[in-house]
This record gives sequence, C-alpha cells and structure tokens, in this order.
Amino acid sequence: MFRSIEYIPDKKCVKIIDQTKLPHETIFVELTTYKEIAEAIYTMKVRGAPLIGVTAAYGIALASIEFLDEKIEIFTEKLEQAKTEIDKTRPTAVNLFWATQKMMKKFYALKKTDKTVDEISNFLVEKANKMAEKDVSINFMLGKNGASLISNGDCVLTHCNAGSLATVLYGTALSAITYAFREEKKKINVISDETRPRLQGATLTAFELQYQKIPVKVISDNSSGLLMRLGKIQKIFVGADRITSDGVFNKIGTYMVALAANANNVPFYVVAPSSSLSLSETSVNVKIEERDPFEVSNVLGKTRIVPEGVDCLNFAFDFTPFDLVTKIITEHGIFTSKELIEFYSKKN
Amino acid sequence: MFRSIEYIPDKKCVKIIDQTKLPHETIFVELTTYKEIAEAIYTMKVRGAPLIGVTAAYGIALASIEFLDEKIEIFTEKLEQAKTEIDKTRPTAVNLFWATQKMMKKFYALKKTDKTVDEISNFLVEKANKMAEKDVSINFMLGKNGASLISNGDCVLTHCNAGSLATVLYGTALSAITYAFREEKKKINVISDETRPRLQGATLTAFELQYQKIPVKVISDNSSGLLMRLGKIQKIFVGADRITSDGVFNKIGTYMVALAANANNVPFYVVAPSSSLSLSETSVNVKIEERDPFEVSNVLGKTRIVPEGVDCLNFAFDFTPFDLVTKIITEHGIFTSKELIEFYSKKN
Repeated sequence: MFRSIEYIPDKKCVKIIDQTKLPHETIFVELTTYKEIAEAIYTMKVRGAPLIGVTAAYGIALASIEFLDEKIEIFTEKLEQAKTEIDKTRPTAVNLFWATQKMMKKFYALKKTDKTVDEISNFLVEKANKMAEKDVSINFMLGKNGASLISNGDCVLTHCNAGSLATVLYGTALSAITYAFREEKKKINVISDETRPRLQGATLTAFELQYQKIPVKVISDNSSGLLMRLGKIQKIFVGADRITSDGVFNKIGTYMVALAANANNVPFYVVAPSSSLSLSETSVNVKIEERDPFEVSNVLGKTRIVPEGVDCLNFAFDFTPFDLVTKIITEHGIFTSKELIEFYSKKN
Repeated sequence: MFRSIEYIPDKKCVKIIDQTKLPHETIFVELTTYKEIAEAIYTMKVRGAPLIGVTAAYGIALASIEFLDEKIEIFTEKLEQAKTEIDKTRPTAVNLFWATQKMMKKFYALKKTDKTVDEISNFLVEKANKMAEKDVSINFMLGKNGASLISNGDCVLTHCNAGSLATVLYGTALSAITYAFREEKKKINVISDETRPRLQGATLTAFELQYQKIPVKVISDNSSGLLMRLGKIQKIFVGADRITSDGVFNKIGTYMVALAANANNVPFYVVAPSSSLSLSETSVNVKIEERDPFEVSNVLGKTRIVPEGVDCLNFAFDFTPFDLVTKIITEHGIFTSKELIEFYSKKN
C-alpha cells in the first residue's frame, strides 16, 4: 500500500504520488506552494474525497509558510486568498471545504492569541499533519467496520478508486476489502469497474489491488448489471464524495451500479469518513461538477474516440438516493440511512 | 448515409466499409472468398445483427462462386463447410444463423432441380442480393414505425450502433431517429453512449449522425442514469441482437440503461427486424459471447488502461427482461412484449 501524501519537514514540502501517471509510472512530486497544491487537486494528480481534504489542508499550511514574512493582517489576507483558490479546484467533495474551513478556524483561533506568524505557521503545519494522521486512523476503522460485511469467498465489485490512493492510507471502500483480505484472511475476488472517463478503476484500483496481491479483474462500466444478473457479484463497496440528507454523491456511474444492485438483490455499501457527511443539505442544492469534454473524447488524453467536431458531455459525479443504499459505513459504525441521520444529529 | 454492403457483379465481390477504421478513416474493402467474409464478421469489420446476417448470406453466395468448378456433391460439401465456418464467427446475433440457413434452404431446393452448379450459384447470388434489398425496405419500415414514437424536441438516447452501419442501409434504432429528423422534420437531439469496450457509439453512431447533421453528443456509458434523473433524456431507442420469449439480447450495457430508464419513467424502445426474433427459445438457452479481454484493456487496440498482469472480463452482450421494455418495434408495427409474442405466433 502506498502512502499518498506526506509532509517533509526538512524541505517544507508536501510529497504526493502523481496519480495521473499511474499505473504505468510511479512518480512522486514535491509541492512547495499553495498554488501547486491547487493545481495538483484541479488536474487530479491527487483525487479521492478524503485525500483532496488532507491535501487542501496542507495547501493552507504551505500558504502559511510562503507568507511567513508578512505582517499578520497581510498574512491573514493571503491565507484567505489561498483558501478561496483551493476551494475553487473541485466542487463536489465536501471534504475539501471541510478541511480548509477547519484549518482557517484553527488560524482564527491562533490569531486571537499573542502568537507570532512563525508560531502560527508551525501550528498550522502541525494541524495538517494531525488531519493526515486522523485520516489514517479513520480509514483503518472504515476498513475494520466494512470488512465485517464481507464473507469468505465473496466477489466484491467496486467503482472508481476508493483506495489508499484516494486517502492518505488504507482508503475507504477498498480499506474494507483489504482489511478483510489482510487482517481477516478472507478469500476475496474483486471486480473493478474501469470508471470512464478518467479510468480510476482500471488504473488506480487495479494497481493497488495487484500490489497487495488481491485477485482483481477489470470490466467496462456497462457490464456490472449482467454480472449481477448472472450471480457473479455478492457485494458492492463504493466510496462517497458527499452524503446529503437524501443520498450519496459519488463518481459518475455509481447510481447505475446501485440500480443494478437493487434489481438483483446485491447489497450496496457506501464507505465514507464522517467528514464526507453533509446531512444538513439535500441533494437538490448540490451542483454536479462538469469537467472538460476532452476527458471523454480522448482516452487518457491520448486516443481520440469521437469524430472531429462531435461534442461530449462529462458529468463527474452522480447522485444515488438512499433507497438504493443498503448500509453506510463510517468510522463510527454501520448504519442504515435512517440510523445515520439519527446518530449524527445526536452527535453534533 | 452510407450503404454498408454491396455486391459488385463485374468483380464477383462484396464491397464493405471497414468499420474498425471509422470514424477517422472511411475505407472500403472488397471481399471475394467466404473466408474473407468470415474474417470480416469475426474481426467486426462488419457488425450489427442485420448486417451480419446479410454479410453471412453473401458468404454463402461467394462460396458458391469459389467452388463453381466442383461436381455437385463436392460443391454441396464445400457450401456446408462454408456455412459451418461462417456460423462460428459470432454467437449472439440470431440473424447470422437465420441468413445462412435461408441460403442453404434455397440451395437444397435448387439442388433438387436439374440446375447446373453455375445456375445454382447465380440463384444464390440473386438470393443474397434480395436479402440485402429486403433489409433496406424492412429498415425503412422500422424507421417509419419507430419515428411515430418520437416527439418534436425530444432528446433521444441510443446505445452502441444500431444505424445504417449495423444494417445494409437506414439502420434499426437510428432509422427511427433519422426518419423522424429527415422525413418528419422533427427537432431531435441525440445522446450516444460511447459503448465500451469497442466504442461503437462514440465512433460509428456519432459518425453517422454527424454525417446527417443530426445534433449528437457522446457520453460515457455510466452517465445516462444521471442524465435521466436530471430529466435530460425523453426516449431511449436501441437495437437488438436477439429477442427471445422473455426479453432482449443487445450490446453490453443495454440492461443497465433499461434499469435507469425504468427507474426514471423514460420510455425504452427496442427496434429490430423480425429476423432478430427467436421467440421459441428463452434467455437461459443463450450463451453470451465473451470476447478477447484485450478489447477492454487496450482502448481501440492502442492505449493500455490496466496495469500489466491485470485481467479483464469482456462480455459482449447482455439480457434485458421484457418488463423493462416499453415497446418493441418491427417492420410490422409497434408491440408490447405480449402483443409481439401473440402476433408472431399467429404469423408463423
């Protein structure tokens, strides 16, 4: 398993894997400015809701290092500017805003004390480090909780990449699969949806599972319905970019998998940290990110598949209503949608 | 619109468009032997159930020309051998077996007369020509019947290529769309599923519609569910490779589109000539063609998308049960599944 992001104190930089180069090349990149962080999120060098969150937090931390020489008021302005720019990179994963807000909240609290800009910056880096470590421990719990739903011998379908590469370590949906395989020694086969247009399932998920020696086969996204009809898939595990009061936003295609699961009585599980919850809003308020049609028309930026002059549509996420979701797994347990809303309304 | 297949009497050859080269190159190929015909079907230079049927019929006709110098018994053996080889090329489209059987039936009838091998061959070529012309007139009727279900202003989704290129001319599902546009002057927008792994929707359907100046946008296969939820698709038109007593075999992905249509109350129409009907069998008897995993792992035979050493599954078709199908359109009319079975049981 790869750690997807790491802060290097000596170099005051953030080391990431450039995920656009996987699975053919494993290239680590060092980022030293918040603008580099924003660019890495926007171009999907880092992706996956939890990892986007932690990366964004490091973006604020790096900004605090960049503007160390400024007076507190200019420093504040620059930090706020950095937050605005980072927040603009991807619109769907709620973890992004959750993380930058958390960092800024910390900053405003620190600002009220008599700490120097230097001290504040140190605290912000420490805060981002803590958020990264918390992500690791949360994902471990996601795996432990989720694994309990996997039986020995199951063939599990997953969509997109909700693996170690979507988080700091372990992953969300894949954490359940890898925990069941590694810690519980369950025999598991995985089917990975290729996940057009960016093919995170074919590239990243297959790469991670192969690396961990978990048997995996890749299918085109339009095949899972048939496989479920044929009884070849026992469980479905996916991640989430945002969970609202009525359902789950996740990678485009999740909804169609959920419909097929529902029609064929295959349990459909969503695994996500509580930072992906946004239970005070309903789905109608969420605008779905439309990305460059080039991602559809030119596979991996290379092979052009449509005639010149023909347009493509490229919605990056879709919405799966709760009635198609069997259970939601967070670091705190396993919930029906009703239980989830009850639990987190009491908790907050 | 392109005519996909044509017999050239002077050259005693069959001229086809090599569809594996579309949309970037329009290359015509002349086939002179039944083995070349079989190869063209197997490698999908020609594809689409009705076109496969007509091409297979020409395969028998070309075999009859190849073996003109043989005595009638050897000629018979060679023709039967040709049929066996052609029948092996693709297992799902019932039109293939329907066409070769029809040709052989004609041959056995001719053989009983005092006709020479030369005369028999001429009759077989004539028979194949008639089957091609019949395909054209049937598809015209499919278009006329299907177009009546399209309203002015509709956005219509189609999957794979059920166009002129899937037939001799006009197409099946696309015939309805082009008829409504061309003859009835209805305003139509088309969404074409890219249709992994072979991408016939992105390449062939987009190419045909662009050529006819019908507005078309291509989407990844996993997007249609979202678009239906958003109310952006009014009707779905697909073709069929085989219609059994309980449902429809068509290109992989059709079933998941039908599930999404059903969940969102979008009418789901199947357009197919009666030669695609196989109402005396049920779906359980149909083995679904599994093709080379290379089609999934390497997009259009070029860009590799999965890590080396990772396998893919490649089921080429799936099954959509009748309860997800709103109407079936044949050259004889528009039917519910119940009406279809009644009508054709009386007709035969």
